[in-house]
Amino acid sequence: MKVFKGKKFYVEVKNLKLPSGKKIRFDGIVAANGVLIIPFVDKDTIILIKEFKPPVGKWVYQFPVGGIGKNEVSLTAARRELEEETGYLSEKMRYLGKFYVDPGYMNVMVHLFEARGLTFKKQRLGGYEVIRTVKVKLKNVKKLIERGTIKDGRTIAALFFLYIKR
Amino acid sequence: MKVFKGKKFYVEVKNLKLPSGKKIRFDGIVAANGVLIIPFVDKDTIILIKEFKPPVGKWVYQFPVGGIGKNEVSLTAARRELEEETGYLSEKMRYLGKFYVDPGYMNVMVHLFEARGLTFKKQRLGGYEVIRTVKVKLKNVKKLIERGTIKDGRTIAALFFLYIKR
Repeated sequence: MKVFKGKKFYVEVKNLKLPSGKKIRFDGIVAANGVLIIPFVDKDTIILIKEFKPPVGKWVYQFPVGGIGKNEVSLTAARRELEEETGYLSEKMRYLGKFYVDPGYMNVMVHLFEARGLTFKKQRLGGYEVIRTVKVKLKNVKKLIERGTIKDGRTIAALFFLYIKR
Repeated sequence: MKVFKGKKFYVEVKNLKLPSGKKIRFDGIVAANGVLIIPFVDKDTIILIKEFKPPVGKWVYQFPVGGIGKNEVSLTAARRELEEETGYLSEKMRYLGKFYVDPGYMNVMVHLFEARGLTFKKQRLGGYEVIRTVKVKLKNVKKLIERGTIKDGRTIAALFFLYIKR
């Protein structure tokens, strides 16, 4: 049963039977699956966006992230979000993997893409988006995490995928 | 204004003024900040839990994670969650860092701890928790992420912190 419907997600209350046999009532957040894009300007330099995030009331450094639309495949969504949030078109997209953002609260799975061969066109932001783009040397990324400059868990997880896949 | 109140979170609708000056209505999820614990059995072996997650309807491999209680500091919460979910007490806890789980949807910040010097006591699970513990060699972790066995983003981000801090 949907108990709340917002712009980006809804809340569903379900009666569930756990694998243990126990029956429970569970409140879960349901939203569209997402894409996260790691844009490479050159082989040593990535783009992060700096975005104002209302839920935490702060500017957060992260990779471009967005929801996959209805009737949209993840690759199309990744190209669209990259263009909207950074202004770049990509010639080469490579799939890196996927993860759940927080499977204890919500259903969302994020699909990761690496974007190379970039050409700048024009940023096209949504109504509530306030975004700046920042170029960062890959070799500085660990320091930025350690210092707490990068504090978005999805971005940190994506960087580990990048590190594993190199 | 709180528009929905569940067991673990509530939904708040806020009227906000963005840094751009634009006024918007925003729906955000509000829950307690959390702790994530990386338990070391020995210097090469960590403990993951395998837990059934109702929002995704699947068993997920992850580190022990839980909410920080009212009047509880993060270190106390980390010791408590470690004991409840794995049954282990830890002699040595070390703070590794923190990250937002998903600052586009929710306020939650997770604090990471490394736990060493473990002694087994007894698992004490909450009502809806269905958990098994699994010992994993650190050297196999990258492979488990690559294969998609580990697909919890918070756990993958925590592993990157571990890698950075070594």
